[in-house]
Amino acid sequence: MDIAEFVKLSLGRWRSQRSAHHLAFGHFEQVTSIIDIVPLDKDDLEVIKLCKSHEIDPQTVNHPFRMSWEGESDWDEEESFKGTTILVPIPDLDNSQTGRLLRDQGYAETIPSIGNYHITEDGTFVLLTQYERATAEEKIWFVNPNFRLRVSMIKTSEGTGVVTASFSSEIRSLSNNSEN
Amino acid sequence: MDIAEFVKLSLGRWRSQRSAHHLAFGHFEQVTSIIDIVPLDKDDLEVIKLCKSHEIDPQTVNHPFRMSWEGESDWDEEESFKGTTILVPIPDLDNSQTGRLLRDQGYAETIPSIGNYHITEDGTFVLLTQYERATAEEKIWFVNPNFRLRVSMIKTSEGTGVVTASFSSEIRSLSNNSEN
Repeated sequence: MDIAEFVKLSLGRWRSQRSAHHLAFGHFEQVTSIIDIVPLDKDDLEVIKLCKSHEIDPQTVNHPFRMSWEGESDWDEEESFKGTTILVPIPDLDNSQTGRLLRDQGYAETIPSIGNYHITEDGTFVLLTQYERATAEEKIWFVNPNFRLRVSMIKTSEGTGVVTASFSSEIRSLSNNSEN
Repeated sequence: MDIAEFVKLSLGRWRSQRSAHHLAFGHFEQVTSIIDIVPLDKDDLEVIKLCKSHEIDPQTVNHPFRMSWEGESDWDEEESFKGTTILVPIPDLDNSQTGRLLRDQGYAETIPSIGNYHITEDGTFVLLTQYERATAEEKIWFVNPNFRLRVSMIKTSEGTGVVTASFSSEIRSLSNNSEN
């Protein structure tokens, strides 16, 4: 599994159930959402702009994509949330299993981020992102082409304490495909 | 990481938050529990009995242990549940990263089970267990010595459909240690 294959498997519409464990107080949060992942062109203006903001050569981009989500949390039942972000993989030149991932808006903070990814021998995508006041670690793997799992952790910036651990199970929405 | 190291890291008392995703209906279940994992002697009578029931030589046992749990689910707020099971690793002779795991009571069904485990290069313990009407897959890994994560799946026995995906975050209960 390399980043190109991983992105291709991720494309489409996903129905997501997410549980967040807020560890200090043993709180549970339940989130349901629809996630859309669509491919972008390498010469998409927003992709090029994001590369330039990190002083990275746009020629090194591999399979950029846009992820959008819309859903509801049981912590705020009156409001639905939605968002969108551009993700741009920059594989390392000397290793097909590792690289960097740019995004124009992070999970933990609403600022651009750059993370380091690697893909393990059993096909798990692992992303580590350092923010100013937190570290995020995410693992994503496919149980089958239509079902994927994500485990995320937010740690304090020193990387010692885990603040939140969350789990998403994502089922491909086949009804979306049949509309095509 | 081999099975001996994995079992040693697991010993102690854990405060567990578990979220189960029942996928067919998008239901969430929240479980909180206390889990105690204590070592057993290789010549413990129950360990030997479990080996004999599977026609396995008790001399091949490595670091058997007992796991007990007590907790509450939001699906049945009036009742707490509790249980205990003996787990007996039988490492393969030719590979320190693989083996079988006997237990005297399973998760998915209340019958004895025998599963196959392997430990990945990044230290994740993966257990596959075939039951009569279901297949269970569990991944357990340590974020640090006092924090571990577990992801479990129950699939139909053909292994095609995932019925339930669940996620546990487990924090070592240090207060228990200070009592020693």
